[in-house]
Amino acid sequence: MRDRYGITQVIFPKQGADEAGLKRYAESVNLGREFVVKVTGKVVERSNKNKQRDTGDIEVVADSLDVLNASQTPPFKIEDATDAQEETRMKYRYLDIRRNPLKEALLLRNKVTRIVRDHLNDLQFCEIETPVLIKSTPEGARDFVVPSRMNPGQFYALPQSPQTFKQLLMVGGMDRYFQIVKCFRDEELRADRQPEFTQIDCEMSFVSQEDILNVFEHMIKKLFKEVIGHEFPSFPRMEYSEAMDRFGIDKPDTRFDMELVDITGCSKGFSFKIFDDAEIVLGMCCKGLGEWSSKKIKDLEKKATGQEVGATAMVWMKYDKDGSFDCSAKKFFTETQYKAWVEKANALPGGCVPGDLLVIIAGPKLKTQEAMGKFRHLMGTELGLRSKGFNALWVVNFPMLEWDDEAERFTAKHHPFTSPWTEDIEQMTSLDKKDQRLNDVRANAYDMVINGVEVGGGSIRIHNRELQAKVFEVLGFTKEEAQEQFGFLMGAFDYGAPPHGGLAFGLDRLCTILGGKTSIRDYIAFPKNNMGRDTMINSPSEITPVQLAELSIATAVKAKEASPAAPAPSGGYPAEKAA
Amino acid sequence: MRDRYGITQVIFPKQGADEAGLKRYAESVNLGREFVVKVTGKVVERSNKNKQRDTGDIEVVADSLDVLNASQTPPFKIEDATDAQEETRMKYRYLDIRRNPLKEALLLRNKVTRIVRDHLNDLQFCEIETPVLIKSTPEGARDFVVPSRMNPGQFYALPQSPQTFKQLLMVGGMDRYFQIVKCFRDEELRADRQPEFTQIDCEMSFVSQEDILNVFEHMIKKLFKEVIGHEFPSFPRMEYSEAMDRFGIDKPDTRFDMELVDITGCSKGFSFKIFDDAEIVLGMCCKGLGEWSSKKIKDLEKKATGQEVGATAMVWMKYDKDGSFDCSAKKFFTETQYKAWVEKANALPGGCVPGDLLVIIAGPKLKTQEAMGKFRHLMGTELGLRSKGFNALWVVNFPMLEWDDEAERFTAKHHPFTSPWTEDIEQMTSLDKKDQRLNDVRANAYDMVINGVEVGGGSIRIHNRELQAKVFEVLGFTKEEAQEQFGFLMGAFDYGAPPHGGLAFGLDRLCTILGGKTSIRDYIAFPKNNMGRDTMINSPSEITPVQLAELSIATAVKAKEASPAAPAPSGGYPAEKAA
Repeated sequence: MRDRYGITQVIFPKQGADEAGLKRYAESVNLGREFVVKVTGKVVERSNKNKQRDTGDIEVVADSLDVLNASQTPPFKIEDATDAQEETRMKYRYLDIRRNPLKEALLLRNKVTRIVRDHLNDLQFCEIETPVLIKSTPEGARDFVVPSRMNPGQFYALPQSPQTFKQLLMVGGMDRYFQIVKCFRDEELRADRQPEFTQIDCEMSFVSQEDILNVFEHMIKKLFKEVIGHEFPSFPRMEYSEAMDRFGIDKPDTRFDMELVDITGCSKGFSFKIFDDAEIVLGMCCKGLGEWSSKKIKDLEKKATGQEVGATAMVWMKYDKDGSFDCSAKKFFTETQYKAWVEKANALPGGCVPGDLLVIIAGPKLKTQEAMGKFRHLMGTELGLRSKGFNALWVVNFPMLEWDDEAERFTAKHHPFTSPWTEDIEQMTSLDKKDQRLNDVRANAYDMVINGVEVGGGSIRIHNRELQAKVFEVLGFTKEEAQEQFGFLMGAFDYGAPPHGGLAFGLDRLCTILGGKTSIRDYIAFPKNNMGRDTMINSPSEITPVQLAELSIATAVKAKEASPAAPAPSGGYPAEKAA
Repeated sequence: MRDRYGITQVIFPKQGADEAGLKRYAESVNLGREFVVKVTGKVVERSNKNKQRDTGDIEVVADSLDVLNASQTPPFKIEDATDAQEETRMKYRYLDIRRNPLKEALLLRNKVTRIVRDHLNDLQFCEIETPVLIKSTPEGARDFVVPSRMNPGQFYALPQSPQTFKQLLMVGGMDRYFQIVKCFRDEELRADRQPEFTQIDCEMSFVSQEDILNVFEHMIKKLFKEVIGHEFPSFPRMEYSEAMDRFGIDKPDTRFDMELVDITGCSKGFSFKIFDDAEIVLGMCCKGLGEWSSKKIKDLEKKATGQEVGATAMVWMKYDKDGSFDCSAKKFFTETQYKAWVEKANALPGGCVPGDLLVIIAGPKLKTQEAMGKFRHLMGTELGLRSKGFNALWVVNFPMLEWDDEAERFTAKHHPFTSPWTEDIEQMTSLDKKDQRLNDVRANAYDMVINGVEVGGGSIRIHNRELQAKVFEVLGFTKEEAQEQFGFLMGAFDYGAPPHGGLAFGLDRLCTILGGKTSIRDYIAFPKNNMGRDTMINSPSEITPVQLAELSIATAVKAKEASPAAPAPSGGYPAEKAA
């Protein structure tokens, strides 16, 4: 017999049984998989003990049996390991949840939120619910919107985060806020993205960046210790620029080395156009893949130039175990050059040793760094360097702005409410809003990174109307647009807004890392698939013409055959309600 | 100086001050209301102590002063009592939250959720998040819907409650679930209704109704004790039919008597048509309003026949202090009849004594009971009988179904997933679906009522496919409709669903009662007004043509002047995100 708490063996003895016992025996033989039964009986010591099981020392001799509900044969076995297709598992999610790994994932999530809430409540953080029906703004990712029946032609939006509300709570004097809250983003989905996700959203008044890092580093340490017994040392702080230079990514997995090697200085001037034309030439040592057959190298090339990494071309230099060199651009370079590269590499952790392959990508600085950063994570996964242990750090001092080629304007690297460094305000306000020197403006923004995943991030906010208005201006808003969209926030700054800042953690991601998995779906009771569909309930779905009319909207999609007329809403029985 | 934790007096001494001190003094004189300042100084004993204040024994002699942010004069004073219009308070909610009553309300709410979570977690309840983007069904109240960009022409709906998901969790073996969760209902709004509200949603497997009542009565008792020190005795259980007979309402405020008097038997046959034609004649004693002037009586008549109560007519019988009688229908009745009525009344708590006015309403049974029930609550409020103390009870054994005149079919009194009494299943399945004897089918449903407010309600659910299908049939669904809308749930019952049941509490209401207020808005950080608008952020609002096109929808409302073109979404900076 299985329940949420475990498994216990029940026996229905045939030998020596009275009439009722024989009847029970006969019934028990007919029990199928997943039947729901009620049994009473006597707990006895088991003769053949099963040491693998918590309850392996005992069994229950049944003296009654009731079948509370029968079951059809389930579409997959309820066992820890399953080979069922994900599609089947999603459709029968209620059966998948019976499997230990999913059940444990949900229990872990509950444990995480409980520890977080207790910890923050004890520190005087007050959990406050902010609205779900808010206002659409064209900034950020795409909003999910909700047509308003009472305000025809108008729409609510679902929050991408409670950002402005938590700031207004700071203005309201609630100096320590948090909320574990659903957020929504209408974006393309991946294994670690869901249209609805959960944040641990936090904000504090009268604090410096240092205060925030300390409070939340402490919280995460406590969480890892209490949930899985892992003790973190102090989280190192790494500058954004250092993270990009060393790892090519702002969320480096620092569990393994293989740092980026800048060979720009010793690879130019040899008539190799790819290098000569490049702003930067970056190498990275690929290790431990055994012999470098040409097939293996081809695979790496495919990875480097594939969609996920996006390099335009890859050059390789093989440093064989016997000390000899080979290179895909060998007609341009000599052993002397190769040695210079290897020397460069060896100045860094995870440098080049005999048996390695130096993978080289060249091009504009940021793009090349980013490609190499992605490639490094991919290789780390491939080499099994990313499956064990924990490594956490803070990445700090992000740039305030980043140039958007397509929109031909700067966008905020974190979000438009992030404060620039005091030292950089003058520069920011004096430059033209397309001046590339704006790239140098630094922000009081920080991310917490664990195992190469950004688990949280935040910033010290602007709390001054003029500075906020100036930032909107730099971001290309007209005065009217800024007022229309964020006037309420700037207005609030007129009435005594305290200095404040905060951050938000991705609960789904945090649980996934704590549980040692890779897909956030395993930590969400009822996730959606890559098309945003819940295949179990078959949602989204068409709504009735009556509903559309009430909402003053029409779909631009031709209706399929009219759905069967359903009973009209009667107000009779809202699903369980009490508010 | 004020912060979230209280007020402290700060002084900037002029006499004997050095140059810096004089400068500080001068600055301090220019500080305005609601300025945000940072002060350091020395805590000293105060000469003129203020016993009214927690910090009245001390003051701080400042030795530094920084103005962190100035403030304009706020549109209303930040004081406990305010005469500001609700509209102004809503628009400047961040200022309203600085007032103690609102701040305390938010802190109380946090305390309530913390106690509830700890209590339920300790009882092995696991908090599990269910999806917010679900499927629209025509049952129940009106849904808010969300167009799906990736599935053109299709919509998600926001949940009116996580009802089916929590049942699927039971099928999934998570035998004790809870969630403090936002729910949504697109209905007309009142002081105690918001389009988004919060439920404490709970479900258990392998339980009887008795188990559920015990677990949650215990929880609510604990909550009242820990939050406001109130100790409840055991909650009485009252049959639904008794509640209707004695109080005319299924959520009676039992803090006061004035029970309904059935004088049908002694008021008919006197040629008074109104009574003779009526199915029921109900009286109620109005007390304590002093002399019954004709103006007062007219006011009562207005109340009884007004929209809120809805009686077609009211008859009164005045039992004067000198023992004499008067009646609005006196040409039909004699003192003997009046005495018979008074005798009837005196068999009940709150019966008729000299000085009372017996208010009488006659008509069809249910409508007359309901009118009298509403009138009784109104009068209780008027007489000040509903402002103090706490009285809690369970109302149990609700009918399974109720007839909907308009739709000409039965609807579910609680919801379609509620189980009927085992004894009544045969009757339910044997009768025609329009047979009025279906009114007699009882349900395993229960409400918790405190002070005349339904704070929670629930039921034991159906866990058997055939019974669930039968209930949908009784409710007028065709087989196809039932399958299309709730096939996933009935399908789940095929795989071993345990017996289960649960309930949901309205968190907003519960907090309002605990805090001794009447409007749930006071316990919601950012509520919406009666038109569903958030006037602070000016939401809902129009969205851009690009958004509409992406979502494959059009509004049936003519666009006002085009809104100023805003920067296009760039994917650049979602508000704080980490998932």
